Amino acid sequence: MGYLVGEENRGLEYMFIMMNSARYAVGMQGIAIAERAYQKAVSFAKDRVQSRPVDGSIKSSLPIIHHPDIKRMLMTMRAYTEGCRAMAAVAAAAYDAAHHHPDAEVQRQNQAFYEFMVPLVKGYSTEMSQEVTSLGVQVHGGMGFIEETGAAQYYRDARILTIYEGTTAIQANDLVGRKTARDGGQTAKGIAAQIERTEAELASRDSLDARAVLKRLKLARETFIEVVEFVACQSKASPNAVFAGSVPYLMLAGNLVVGWQLARSLLVAEDLAKAGTDVAFMTAKVATARFYAEHILNKAPGIRDSIVEGAGSVTALALEAF
Amino acid sequence: MGYLVGEENRGLEYMFIMMNSARYAVGMQGIAIAERAYQKAVSFAKDRVQSRPVDGSIKSSLPIIHHPDIKRMLMTMRAYTEGCRAMAAVAAAAYDAAHHHPDAEVQRQNQAFYEFMVPLVKGYSTEMSQEVTSLGVQVHGGMGFIEETGAAQYYRDARILTIYEGTTAIQANDLVGRKTARDGGQTAKGIAAQIERTEAELASRDSLDARAVLKRLKLARETFIEVVEFVACQSKASPNAVFAGSVPYLMLAGNLVVGWQLARSLLVAEDLAKAGTDVAFMTAKVATARFYAEHILNKAPGIRDSIVEGAGSVTALALEAF
Repeated sequence: MGYLVGEENRGLEYMFIMMNSARYAVGMQGIAIAERAYQKAVSFAKDRVQSRPVDGSIKSSLPIIHHPDIKRMLMTMRAYTEGCRAMAAVAAAAYDAAHHHPDAEVQRQNQAFYEFMVPLVKGYSTEMSQEVTSLGVQVHGGMGFIEETGAAQYYRDARILTIYEGTTAIQANDLVGRKTARDGGQTAKGIAAQIERTEAELASRDSLDARAVLKRLKLARETFIEVVEFVACQSKASPNAVFAGSVPYLMLAGNLVVGWQLARSLLVAEDLAKAGTDVAFMTAKVATARFYAEHILNKAPGIRDSIVEGAGSVTALALEAF
Repeated sequence: MGYLVGEENRGLEYMFIMMNSARYAVGMQGIAIAERAYQKAVSFAKDRVQSRPVDGSIKSSLPIIHHPDIKRMLMTMRAYTEGCRAMAAVAAAAYDAAHHHPDAEVQRQNQAFYEFMVPLVKGYSTEMSQEVTSLGVQVHGGMGFIEETGAAQYYRDARILTIYEGTTAIQANDLVGRKTARDGGQTAKGIAAQIERTEAELASRDSLDARAVLKRLKLARETFIEVVEFVACQSKASPNAVFAGSVPYLMLAGNLVVGWQLARSLLVAEDLAKAGTDVAFMTAKVATARFYAEHILNKAPGIRDSIVEGAGSVTALALEAF
């Protein structure tokens, strides 16, 4: 005996309502576990005393958070997590506007934006959660591998997130096929145009932070457009070449959108800091955005080369040679 | 009661004989576990049937090894593993020559080369083992997270390798301080000069593979020299800035040396394939070297920017803001 839930012949459609919501939710799991790993690592790094500073400024051992490489790891964790959270929030706002905005055209634009974001929120945030939870273990050193510390559990738990509700490759297929190739890259280029407007705002600032972010954001956005054109033009003629770069394309798009959101937060934070509002918090926002631009967003050109020039070597090896 | 092992007051020196050997050995653990993860993933990918090909060439489902993104993951695993093994073998040969070559000057050169290699064999091979064993889980999909499959154990076991016998940051401190800054970058530049000779050999070939590898190797080597100069010149004046980029410098150096060894294997393999020796094996070597160059070695310029331009943002955040 079975029960019919809802109307006949609409099961697949219902399933996809669930699935899209589940994909977004798994992205949030990635962000949440990354945040928890970050907080735990910060707490440990402020507590654990080991080694004198590399600049010789103090002759005794210090909490490890003073060491530059610990800062590098914590900043990486922090920048990824804050940035992915901003991306997820913007995607959620677009979903709301797609359903509740009074103007039908604005609804349509927001729906297209949201649909482009879902594979990024799912794919990019969960991939970053692997790296962030791994860095969380690393900050703990040997203690990170010890079960009772808890850092290793975040690392293990995060590992399912790039797999369930569609692996990263499935998210990437969605991004390449339904979200990019199907409309000839129009939605993707529309997002790039929005990013260009953020660049113009950055260019109007005289701060070194805004200038540093602008340089990487512009390069990443130009890089992204080249890849979108490659994907849109070649997906029919050379599907194997395009799908050989599908996950790198997802990672590039996610990297760019996150860098963009952090750039937007920098603009707001600079204004508020100047106005004297929550200065310490706003200054931290600016520092985090700049770190992301200089250490993560700057990976974009390398990814482009892999996708556009390197497709052949992905599939060159004979099957028997593996 | 205690026992004196060896002579008095030479304990630390003895310990470091053990430690250097242990560091090399942990690097080999990384390579070994990566190889095992690769073999298991290949075996699964040839067996597991799921989905039709993206190019529509066949109307039925195929073993997943036919899908481009599975090939991308397997090639990444393979290229890292083969390349790090080549690097470790070259380091071991230098160690032998440093101890047994009849010419004292050749001994000295080989000792310096070996000492430069130890943090790379340890640091780079174990960092890559994290990525390779993680990809091994990913190739298995949901089965990878299931304990009885075994892929997750490689992933967990590999996690200690970047920690024990000196974390990656400790290897990087060694590379920056004792191995690069102390001789003003001379050993590092000597290695770059050797790489340039490999480039000249690649340039004398007319194959597209050699040309593709040459392009990335040259760029990575030039990038490396810039970073070596930064490290050598700034390590006294701005130690915090140099050490903020110490791990990225290690990853850049490891990436370059591995790409170089794979380029050398390409040269040998092309000759042997032309001579009719083990053609399938040699062709696979060439394909693997090219994949590495186009998908991994090409990350070098992004890393340089992080180190040379991004040091400030690593340490900008106030301690209270973490």
